[in-house]
Amino acid sequence: MNIEDLIKIDRKRDEPLYMQVYLQIKGMVEKGIIKEGAKLPTIRKLSKSLGVNSVTIVNAYHMLEEKGLAYSIVGSGTYIGADGFRLDLSSDGELEPAENTYIPAGDEYINFASSNPSHELFPVEEFKGIFAEVLDRDGGLAFTYQESMGYRPLRESLARLLSEEGIKVNSRNILVISGAQQGLDIISKVLIEQGDNVLVERPTYAGAIAVFKSRGASISEVPLTEDGINIPYLEELLKKQSIRMLYVMPEFQNPTGICYSDEVKKEILRLSKEYRFFIVEDDFTSDIYYENRPSSFLSCGHSDNVIFIKSFSKVFMPGLRLAFMVLPDMLLDSIQAAKYTSDIATSGFFQRVLQLFLDKGLWRKHTEMLRAVYRARRDLMAECLNQMRDTGIMFNVPDGGLNFWLTLPEGFKDKQIYDEAIKEKVIVAPGSFFYLDSPEQKHLRLGFASTDEEEIKNGLKVIRKILTVSENKNFSHSEPLL
Amino acid sequence: MNIEDLIKIDRKRDEPLYMQVYLQIKGMVEKGIIKEGAKLPTIRKLSKSLGVNSVTIVNAYHMLEEKGLAYSIVGSGTYIGADGFRLDLSSDGELEPAENTYIPAGDEYINFASSNPSHELFPVEEFKGIFAEVLDRDGGLAFTYQESMGYRPLRESLARLLSEEGIKVNSRNILVISGAQQGLDIISKVLIEQGDNVLVERPTYAGAIAVFKSRGASISEVPLTEDGINIPYLEELLKKQSIRMLYVMPEFQNPTGICYSDEVKKEILRLSKEYRFFIVEDDFTSDIYYENRPSSFLSCGHSDNVIFIKSFSKVFMPGLRLAFMVLPDMLLDSIQAAKYTSDIATSGFFQRVLQLFLDKGLWRKHTEMLRAVYRARRDLMAECLNQMRDTGIMFNVPDGGLNFWLTLPEGFKDKQIYDEAIKEKVIVAPGSFFYLDSPEQKHLRLGFASTDEEEIKNGLKVIRKILTVSENKNFSHSEPLL
Repeated sequence: MNIEDLIKIDRKRDEPLYMQVYLQIKGMVEKGIIKEGAKLPTIRKLSKSLGVNSVTIVNAYHMLEEKGLAYSIVGSGTYIGADGFRLDLSSDGELEPAENTYIPAGDEYINFASSNPSHELFPVEEFKGIFAEVLDRDGGLAFTYQESMGYRPLRESLARLLSEEGIKVNSRNILVISGAQQGLDIISKVLIEQGDNVLVERPTYAGAIAVFKSRGASISEVPLTEDGINIPYLEELLKKQSIRMLYVMPEFQNPTGICYSDEVKKEILRLSKEYRFFIVEDDFTSDIYYENRPSSFLSCGHSDNVIFIKSFSKVFMPGLRLAFMVLPDMLLDSIQAAKYTSDIATSGFFQRVLQLFLDKGLWRKHTEMLRAVYRARRDLMAECLNQMRDTGIMFNVPDGGLNFWLTLPEGFKDKQIYDEAIKEKVIVAPGSFFYLDSPEQKHLRLGFASTDEEEIKNGLKVIRKILTVSENKNFSHSEPLL
Repeated sequence: MNIEDLIKIDRKRDEPLYMQVYLQIKGMVEKGIIKEGAKLPTIRKLSKSLGVNSVTIVNAYHMLEEKGLAYSIVGSGTYIGADGFRLDLSSDGELEPAENTYIPAGDEYINFASSNPSHELFPVEEFKGIFAEVLDRDGGLAFTYQESMGYRPLRESLARLLSEEGIKVNSRNILVISGAQQGLDIISKVLIEQGDNVLVERPTYAGAIAVFKSRGASISEVPLTEDGINIPYLEELLKKQSIRMLYVMPEFQNPTGICYSDEVKKEILRLSKEYRFFIVEDDFTSDIYYENRPSSFLSCGHSDNVIFIKSFSKVFMPGLRLAFMVLPDMLLDSIQAAKYTSDIATSGFFQRVLQLFLDKGLWRKHTEMLRAVYRARRDLMAECLNQMRDTGIMFNVPDGGLNFWLTLPEGFKDKQIYDEAIKEKVIVAPGSFFYLDSPEQKHLRLGFASTDEEEIKNGLKVIRKILTVSENKNFSHSEPLL
């Protein structure tokens, strides 16, 4: 199968043929079916293949070039690609660089880009005991399909967990899912149609942008202040366009670490009712607090337009693939059905394991341990960064979560730091990754989730070195560095 | 939030306003946001809410009625619903009947509708040992994110497994996924755009239809013969429309149990290359064969347009949520990226468990045991059904898989049998469930996956009784029976 086999022309549609061809090629590039540097079929070949006039293909290719998706080389052909440096944006920290580089997994790397916990923190012995207990107690029943909302005893335990945090929730509104990513995916399936407007924070979690885009959403960014999104800016946007949902991470925002104030949350709720949009709250790290436990939109009182997602990946390890959602009544059936078409059911075995873990008090023990371990790392990183202030960096010390959001001194760009650091086997997350477009290139997200104390000290020494070597200043290269 | 809050009008689009309203309401009904029997907002209220002329709403509601999605009651309003009997079509056998009935999970029911194995067949002791081994060996590493294609040693074991079945596959083309359903979901995300044509068997697995529909595919059915889909019929369809993919289950098709002949497979491959479409092969049960192991499209030689999905739900239990895909090179990156946005990664723990299970020879042992257990049940069911031939039923004895596809005698309808049987605590799967539209109502799918020998005998006695009570004949009621 070739590119031309994947393009389908439909003359019955109103859309001009060249636009159909342009959009399908664009779609294939976005999905990764056609890669950077790939040569498009010749105009003659594609027009013949599709049974259209070559002018149609000329126009389609011209549009691709205008939009910066392709370029032509005289006498050679049209190629997918654009000028400038590109990195694949794949995760909240697990970098998957473009094909022409490779970062080996490996302990010799100091990985400040990862936001996933050190595997040594996984409570192996406790889990071993609980695994055996579930198998003995339930045998094969633990591996049948569960009720589609999830294992009921777990949903009840989760409702109790939330109520200990001051959130009154009925277990009937709790849906167990296979990780927060799935939560975003199924919300998007149900609520987002082509062209719907979605608002996100700026900067934000790139994995969410990817999901919204895959449903054809039109995404706009709302800048952040130190207590949450910029409310006047939000209000102006709301006056201009009718929006479907606002995606926020009010508890130790990724990547900035910001914690939303109660005032900002109340304003957002007020606006959401006035302008009738859903608030999608993504809580992936509220249990890792160093001062006070942050509060959720759900504790601001009853709302039928708040969709809450909480995941356990940062607390337990992403490998358990467990999270849950609190859904308004009106969305219970549709979201449940979307989850069904997505993967039928979340692992019943791990649901039973989590329920026992919660009910035996092991959760409380475990999160207390994590807060202690991570606070020590945070404090150490804060100390090291403090000692680097003479380089011109700026940062706030986060009150929770697993990352620092660093602002670089004048003259430095994030990707440049990335390149230099990786030569020394230190991985940082360039701030550009977290922007929808027109990225600010002056930030780094430095995490301590998977770096121990030695690694924090040594890794930051490398960063300091890069920031002080004078020929790095005013580095304004625009060629690909990788 | 109300229905009117979810409807967004976009005057910039060419589409007439009444059509926008109609399509959005239709979408909400299909997704389950608006339920059967729900009252739509009054024409006055909705037109005011959306800022449109009431004629727009009148036209939208009129269209809903014309399409059988709504009905109006004079003096009362417009309601979602249609005449006739409706059951929610949710799975390949796990019935989720409409809201006005409830089927309790419970051992007192004889469930011929389930195609999931009895939990007693789950190899608890072997898994207990392997769970402990993985935890001891890998600890928390088993719970980190895996490489996005999946745990490499497992992919290599899976390649070996396929090669033992005569299929030469490179492990680099194997992607581990969280169940076959996810496979269909991510294939659809990558390959299906609104309006694309997809072909399925008639009848087929309803969960697949749901996924394709959620991407806006236009689905057509191809009838089955005793060796596979009807090739002349397929060829006629291909001449009329350009299709994106053909979804087939050539190894003990669900629900008919048909096994595709090599000749039919070769014809399909020939046509797929001539007409340039993907073949999506769903293997969920090839290991449960009673005569010979069936062969895959992959063993018909090298093809760059076959996408193969194999799941372990029927062999192990659905709760492991494990399956894998063999992908053509051109789709590796895009499908991997779609999986990423779907749930980031499949449980690394269970991947490691499966790899050990395969490499220790336990898989071979386990599937031999299953074939023996299921063959005995198949033979018993065949015997009981044979003794019921005097009622006028027709059936073939399947060469593999977990179901019989029964044709009812004249005058009986599947849903009627369903209703009568459930009163006696016997659950059957009405054949109608497996059709895209204009369902044949004269079949039942009777499974023995989760019924033991006593249950098979007793359950079929109930069916026999229903088929012989004379007042059941010529039952042509069209009112809801549940």
